[in-house]
Amino acid sequence: MTTVISREIRLASRPTGIPTAANFVLASRELGPLQDHEVLVRNLFMSVDPYMRGRMNEGKSYIPPFEIGKPLSGAAVGEVIESRAPECKPGDAVVSSLGWREYCIASPQELKPVSREVQPLSVYLGALGMPGMTAWAGLHCVDVKAGDVVYLSGAAGAVGSVAGQLAKLYGCRVIGSTGSDEKAETLRRECGFDVAFNYKKGPLLDQLNAAAPDGIDVYFDNVGGETLEAALTAMRVHGRIIACGGISGYNDPPRPGPSNLMYMVAKRLTMKGLLVGDWQDRKDEFEKEVGGYLRSGKLKNLATTVEGIDNAADAFIGLFRGKNIGKMVVKLVAKETEPGKM
Amino acid sequence: MTTVISREIRLASRPTGIPTAANFVLASRELGPLQDHEVLVRNLFMSVDPYMRGRMNEGKSYIPPFEIGKPLSGAAVGEVIESRAPECKPGDAVVSSLGWREYCIASPQELKPVSREVQPLSVYLGALGMPGMTAWAGLHCVDVKAGDVVYLSGAAGAVGSVAGQLAKLYGCRVIGSTGSDEKAETLRRECGFDVAFNYKKGPLLDQLNAAAPDGIDVYFDNVGGETLEAALTAMRVHGRIIACGGISGYNDPPRPGPSNLMYMVAKRLTMKGLLVGDWQDRKDEFEKEVGGYLRSGKLKNLATTVEGIDNAADAFIGLFRGKNIGKMVVKLVAKETEPGKM
Repeated sequence: MTTVISREIRLASRPTGIPTAANFVLASRELGPLQDHEVLVRNLFMSVDPYMRGRMNEGKSYIPPFEIGKPLSGAAVGEVIESRAPECKPGDAVVSSLGWREYCIASPQELKPVSREVQPLSVYLGALGMPGMTAWAGLHCVDVKAGDVVYLSGAAGAVGSVAGQLAKLYGCRVIGSTGSDEKAETLRRECGFDVAFNYKKGPLLDQLNAAAPDGIDVYFDNVGGETLEAALTAMRVHGRIIACGGISGYNDPPRPGPSNLMYMVAKRLTMKGLLVGDWQDRKDEFEKEVGGYLRSGKLKNLATTVEGIDNAADAFIGLFRGKNIGKMVVKLVAKETEPGKM
Repeated sequence: MTTVISREIRLASRPTGIPTAANFVLASRELGPLQDHEVLVRNLFMSVDPYMRGRMNEGKSYIPPFEIGKPLSGAAVGEVIESRAPECKPGDAVVSSLGWREYCIASPQELKPVSREVQPLSVYLGALGMPGMTAWAGLHCVDVKAGDVVYLSGAAGAVGSVAGQLAKLYGCRVIGSTGSDEKAETLRRECGFDVAFNYKKGPLLDQLNAAAPDGIDVYFDNVGGETLEAALTAMRVHGRIIACGGISGYNDPPRPGPSNLMYMVAKRLTMKGLLVGDWQDRKDEFEKEVGGYLRSGKLKNLATTVEGIDNAADAFIGLFRGKNIGKMVVKLVAKETEPGKM
C-alpha cells in the first residue's frame, strides 16, 4: 500500500445557535505511506455527540476548541488496514479519537483494541463507549441504590438510555423525559423504564409530579435550564443531582439559571458535576459490568445510524433537533470489510 | 411566685420584601403559675437570624411558617427562675427555642443546660449555637482541608465569621466578602482573614479574582444570586460549594439563578445543601472543638447586641440592611440577675 484518499469533515466556521451545514465542509486528504510505528485505520463508525458543540465555540473550556479549517475529531471505531507497528495487525478492531474522517494514521498508543464479540462495533461509541461510561459514572458518583426514584432528562439520548437501563438493573424506579411519543414508547418497551413521557405534551412539572407523586431521589440531568428547575421542585429531601449535561443551552448564549436553587439548601440536596474523563481509572470495572449486561441481553445499545461521511454534519445537527433515539452514529462503510482486506 | 408579665413579639402580618416595623407587634402575656414538671425561664438574650424571614412567608418549607397573631420563636438563652421539675434548678443557664419573649414556661425537655464558663452567654446563640454549628458543619460537609482556598460570602455574618475563622484554624487561605469597609477591616483584624473586601466597592468577580488569582477550592455560600454566579466563575476544577444560605433573595420573589451553572459540569463541581438540623448527632463533637477554640482565645464570637425586646424587630430587620457584624442578638435584661433571684 502506498497512499489512500480519505474524506474528512472540517470546521468551516464557528456556529451561532444551532449549527448549519454551512459550518462544515467535506474535504479529501491523501494519507500515507506509513512510517515505522504507524498504523493505517479505516473507520467503520464515527460518533457525533452533543459535547462537540462546545468545542465549536472559541474560548477556554475543559477541552480545547476545534480549529477552523482543521478536521473535527471525536470517537471512532475502525479496523487496522496496514501496520508498521508490532502492537497492531491488519483486521484488529480499534477505537480512536480520530473520527470525522474515513481513514486515519495513528500510533498504537492512540488506538485502543476492542473485541469483536459485541456487535455491531458501534457499541463502542455508545453503551460500551464514552456515553455508556458517562451513564455508569453518573449513577456511581451519587451512589444510586435499589429503591431510589431516578428521573432522567434527555432519557432517550446516548447517555440517558443507558443510565435508565442501568438504574433499572440496580433496582430503581426509573422515569424519563424525552421529546417525542415515539421515543417515550421506546424507553418503556425497549429499555424497561417505569414511566417515560414526552415533555412537549404538557407542563414538565405536572408530568413529573404525576410520574413521581412522592418526589424523586436522583435526577440525572442531561438538559439543564427549565428541566433542572422542575426537577429541583420535585426532589425529595437529601436528593442527589448528577450534573451531566445541559443540551437545552448548548446552542444559546448563557441564559438565567433556575430560580429555585434555594431548594439546594431547604432540601439539603447534593449536585455533582460529571465529566467521564475523571473516571478513566475505573474503565475496566465499567467495561466488565456493562459488557456483561450487553452480552447477556440485559442492556440494549439503542442507536440511530446515519450512512456516509457526507451525512455526518447532518447527523450532528440532528442531535439538537431530537433526531436520534439512543446513540447517534455515522456508518462510514457500506459493509464491514473482512479483516485484512480493503 | 404566682405569675409574671412577659412581653413578647408577635407576627402582625406577613412581610412583603424586607420586613417593616408594621409586621410586628409587641404584646404582653401573663405566665404562670407553674404546673408540675414545668420551669420558668427568664430569657437573657434572644436571637434574630436571617432564616426566620422564610418562616414569615406562608407555605411549606423545611420548617412550618410562623402564624399571624402568635409570638415568634427562635433561639434564646436564659436562666431558670423557678422550677417544679427536678432536672432544673433556679440559676441554671439554659438554651431554648422560645425566643422573642422575655420569659417562657417550658418542660425540661425543651431546655438545654449550658455552662456559664464561656461568657457572655449570648455565645450560645452565636459561635457555640446554631450559626457556629452551621459554620462547622458546612466546612465538614465538603471536607475542607489545609491548603484549600476558601471564599465566604456574607463573611461578617454569624455563620461566615465563624466559618472563616475555623477555615483559618484548619490551615486554609480565607477570603471573605462583606458589605462595608468597616466589616472587611474587622474580618482581617479580628478574625484573621487573609483577604476581606467590600463587595459594594467594585465588580465582585474582579475583586474575587484579585484575591484568588488561581481560583477558589471551596465556596461557602450565604448569599446566592449574583454572588454564587461570580463564585462559579472563580471555582477551580473539582471545587466544592456549600449551599448554606441565600440572603440576597430572602425578601424577594424568586429570581433567575446563575447563568453559568454549566460550570458544575465543566469543572466537575460539587454543591451540597446544608441545614444544621441534620448534624445534631455530631453536636458534642462541635461543642467540644469550638468550645475549646473559644476558651483558648483562638476563635472570637463576633456579635452585635441590641438592647430590649422593644428593639427586637428592628434588630431582625437590620439583618437585611447589613447592620450586624457577627451574630445579631437582643439583650433582654439590663444586667444578668443573680442565680435564684428575680
